[in-house]
Amino acid sequence: MGITLGPNQYGKAEVRLVTVEREGPVHHIKDLTVSTALRGNLAATHLTGDNRDVVATDTQKNTIFAFAKRQPVGDIEDFALRLGRHFVSSFGQITGARVLIEEHGWRRIEVGGTPHDHAFSRSGEEKRTTAVTVDGDQEWVVSGLADLVVLKSTGSEFHGFPRDEYTTLAETDDRILATAVTARWRYREGETGGWSRAHATARSALLETFARKHSLSLQQTLYAMGGAVIEAVPAIAEVRLSLPNKHHFLVDLSPFGLGNDNEVFHAADRPYGLIEGTVLSDDAPDPGLAWHTLPAF
Amino acid sequence: MGITLGPNQYGKAEVRLVTVEREGPVHHIKDLTVSTALRGNLAATHLTGDNRDVVATDTQKNTIFAFAKRQPVGDIEDFALRLGRHFVSSFGQITGARVLIEEHGWRRIEVGGTPHDHAFSRSGEEKRTTAVTVDGDQEWVVSGLADLVVLKSTGSEFHGFPRDEYTTLAETDDRILATAVTARWRYREGETGGWSRAHATARSALLETFARKHSLSLQQTLYAMGGAVIEAVPAIAEVRLSLPNKHHFLVDLSPFGLGNDNEVFHAADRPYGLIEGTVLSDDAPDPGLAWHTLPAF
Amino acid sequence: MGITLGPNQYGKAEVRLVTVEREGPVHHIKDLTVSTALRGNLAATHLTGDNRDVVATDTQKNTIFAFAKRQPVGDIEDFALRLGRHFVSSFGQITGARVLIEEHGWRRIEVGGTPHDHAFSRSGEEKRTTAVTVDGDQEWVVSGLADLVVLKSTGSEFHGFPRDEYTTLAETDDRILATAVTARWRYREGETGGWSRAHATARSALLETFARKHSLSLQQTLYAMGGAVIEAVPAIAEVRLSLPNKHHFLVDLSPFGLGNDNEVFHAADRPYGLIEGTVLSDDAPDPGLAWHTLPAF
Amino acid sequence: MGITLGPNQYGKAEVRLVTVEREGPVHHIKDLTVSTALRGNLAATHLTGDNRDVVATDTQKNTIFAFAKRQPVGDIEDFALRLGRHFVSSFGQITGARVLIEEHGWRRIEVGGTPHDHAFSRSGEEKRTTAVTVDGDQEWVVSGLADLVVLKSTGSEFHGFPRDEYTTLAETDDRILATAVTARWRYREGETGGWSRAHATARSALLETFARKHSLSLQQTLYAMGGAVIEAVPAIAEVRLSLPNKHHFLVDLSPFGLGNDNEVFHAADRPYGLIEGTVLSDDAPDPGLAWHTLPAF
Repeated sequence: MGITLGPNQYGKAEVRLVTVEREGPVHHIKDLTVSTALRGNLAATHLTGDNRDVVATDTQKNTIFAFAKRQPVGDIEDFALRLGRHFVSSFGQITGARVLIEEHGWRRIEVGGTPHDHAFSRSGEEKRTTAVTVDGDQEWVVSGLADLVVLKSTGSEFHGFPRDEYTTLAETDDRILATAVTARWRYREGETGGWSRAHATARSALLETFARKHSLSLQQTLYAMGGAVIEAVPAIAEVRLSLPNKHHFLVDLSPFGLGNDNEVFHAADRPYGLIEGTVLSDDAPDPGLAWHTLPAF
Repeated sequence: MGITLGPNQYGKAEVRLVTVEREGPVHHIKDLTVSTALRGNLAATHLTGDNRDVVATDTQKNTIFAFAKRQPVGDIEDFALRLGRHFVSSFGQITGARVLIEEHGWRRIEVGGTPHDHAFSRSGEEKRTTAVTVDGDQEWVVSGLADLVVLKSTGSEFHGFPRDEYTTLAETDDRILATAVTARWRYREGETGGWSRAHATARSALLETFARKHSLSLQQTLYAMGGAVIEAVPAIAEVRLSLPNKHHFLVDLSPFGLGNDNEVFHAADRPYGLIEGTVLSDDAPDPGLAWHTLPAF
Repeated sequence: MGITLGPNQYGKAEVRLVTVEREGPVHHIKDLTVSTALRGNLAATHLTGDNRDVVATDTQKNTIFAFAKRQPVGDIEDFALRLGRHFVSSFGQITGARVLIEEHGWRRIEVGGTPHDHAFSRSGEEKRTTAVTVDGDQEWVVSGLADLVVLKSTGSEFHGFPRDEYTTLAETDDRILATAVTARWRYREGETGGWSRAHATARSALLETFARKHSLSLQQTLYAMGGAVIEAVPAIAEVRLSLPNKHHFLVDLSPFGLGNDNEVFHAADRPYGLIEGTVLSDDAPDPGLAWHTLPAF
Repeated sequence: MGITLGPNQYGKAEVRLVTVEREGPVHHIKDLTVSTALRGNLAATHLTGDNRDVVATDTQKNTIFAFAKRQPVGDIEDFALRLGRHFVSSFGQITGARVLIEEHGWRRIEVGGTPHDHAFSRSGEEKRTTAVTVDGDQEWVVSGLADLVVLKSTGSEFHGFPRDEYTTLAETDDRILATAVTARWRYREGETGGWSRAHATARSALLETFARKHSLSLQQTLYAMGGAVIEAVPAIAEVRLSLPNKHHFLVDLSPFGLGNDNEVFHAADRPYGLIEGTVLSDDAPDPGLAWHTLPAF
């Protein structure tokens, strides 16, 4: 019985790129973590160690830095597309590329109420993300955000669930609902430009829907959030959300003769619920390779 | 334009379960992190917040703990199968389940040269893993290991790769090769039992192949490691490996008038290479849902 | 030769407390991580396992939750003082207590431009901190912040340092300066109240000084930042700062025929510089136990 | 009111050094994380940015790498002493140095039952540590270990503690006791050599005592562990231990009609108990600067 090489890819992961652009005395910075992966006819290196087709991961890293100089980085989607197209068009054996980028946010430090020209502070752990796939002359863009931590102190219920022999959870009509949003949205093929505006609109739709939607389950909230993104940004055909349910347990203070009317909570680390789902526009085109090798949700 | 609910799942993630079994004065412990995810007809909760079909994630957690009491946990594959079958068979609307388990290793503390009855120390960060999928009456078992960190101080070369305008990497016929192995292997359907022996055999095949195979590229090493697993364990039809190339850079000591004949290295954190690939037996059956929603490699 | 028990303390670490206060429909949340440590005559439990003097760490946890209900938490300094005084005054054998609190920030989600009543998003990884020590009838308050990540894209030089046989670093008159500020400031004994205003003033002084001070070394920046806090808040007698120098290396693009006029940087993880220092008011009182068992800087 | 510079130090943190030594075909590797901090007359750089006294942290890093080539690294204590003495003796303004080293463990991969010449796997997260302080012609060595995770499934009780209005914890005469040992031990001044043997002896004393000592409190276990180290290694004058009490909660299975005779536990992340203490030899010399700027326990 023999063995065969199946799907594979390789690349450089987590290149930490920071760029500074100058507009007179005013500086603009970009802080990115870039990962590239190449696909194609790579049997030789796997089977015999013949590397004639292996664009070194060190070369991929150099290319990222050089491209950041050749042209302003701009939107991460455009930067990822330029990199992906370069790899696929420059090497015959490389037929596909996947470029992942996370953008870390910074805001200007205020000095005497005025935003400073060249001093910044990190604006949080939330990241703007993109995952671009280039395969031959086809391209897919899946963008999103990660680690957007949100909490509602009321406006969330959970009841009516089935009770079997292992069910002890009490029904509630008022609980804390907290999650760390990871969202990925797939743009329709051919969509170009307006990435930042689309991102801002999608992000607002996620946040406002989380805040406004009275929640009977985190699944309901997920579906509403995904739907709001699709309604707000017509260029988006599909949204995938992964929402950990970060449990906040009401502390039983009755042994101390105290009530607890949703006032004092213990925020637990693990276990957590994990709600994952997809919302699609009714006319969403076939996803092709858009999601290939991305984390499942 | 309307919206539609696409694929989804939900469950309880990272339940930290520790069990103690007693054999006279000798204790045996199991230390597991268990995550369950259920699939099925879950439109109601998403669309209207009607939870009549939502087996609460709290109930899933309780079930894990109760099942750990009802019967000795045994191999993680068997425990995962029991949990998955329970969820799929107990609730009409739940048609599928995915159970992920990580097992954390412990060894007995030696006291005066004798392994102690009930005192243990953690044996490292390596985990034994399984990902079991139950869908109706079909079952798939994908097991593996994660965070097995290995290093070869010689016996690794990298040369013959193409050079373009962005290539600066020097060729080498002697380098450190280091990686943290994440491997997942798919068992043929119908395979039952012998999980621990299969795991031990597969693990040895990975380690011995890493050690013995003279490496011309990490891809070549990956393919050899995956092939060795398939050859060593006939019940395994497919292996997926994700191998970060943890770079160790030779430090340039020439400014200090010193040579460096592969003696002094800087171990870098980021970026790192990332080599991912699949090795299949020639007669591997169709994977079905075995890999559905697992991380891509 | 005998052995003796030396200094010791024990407590409950990292209690994750979230509280909700209601002002009509408007909710206010507090998100704290609280750690308590008790000191005193604790020889019995160490020497013989007699626990008659050991206020259980579980009791300490319960006390934290109960105190959060008895009275609004308010400023973390006041909450820590209430807890510390309780432990020291309630148990004869407990003569000292140290209470550490980290406060995690949240901002209101904007819906249609209006801050929402009860929906919030995490405002970043920066924490407001306090470390309160109570010993008998003496009290010390050391507050501060952690993980405030800042970056200047210019306005930082580093030259004039000595050159020995191991020195290869080039001098520079323009570099990126980035750090993650951990600051702790000691209030004068007897200072009460105004904690939040003092925190805001100190934080602004740190940020504005980092932004405005033209830097010839990170040490110079540190001293200026600490001094600015003392000048801005007379109640603060001493500031300790720990500033990792998060290196951003200019990428050498010359192999690709490209210049790099401080435009493209690689952000390194490790190693990093670490600059630690203390700035004191000339009339700073003796610190007593204020810093006892706190991380050194 | 003026301000003054107080205690300070600066250096390079977390240099990741890996060395390979060859004994014919057999390779030996060392994997270290090295941090240096220098102290002395450093007012100029703080006050005016004059760096004439600032041995650049980059130079410190280069020195670490060069010293690893000049002479085999050997025991981490000796390597740290060589580095510390170099800095203090080479620069007039540098009067003190503190060198921290963590050593990461590797074991040889077994191939066909034989340890391999040059292939290794990581042996766990436990680290061997040292913290060497050089001040003028005085030297202190504090060594230890970190992240040694241990668990006893029986042989641990906790009862007899005081009960106040906030006490709900049940007494128990059989519980799981688990902790992650961080230990630091101070060698007597003048002690030279035998570091590895002392480390092995101290480590065994910690492990065997944890296993054998029937525990009435984690404090009692701590004191016994520290005392055992001092008794086993006469060169050690003082031991400081920091022991998180990693709680394993018995799961209440009674709602499911099941008993739980210490069989099924939930391993909690936070909060955790934290027991910290010092054990001294009766003739321990004055610690001088041995512990200066080390984490408190």
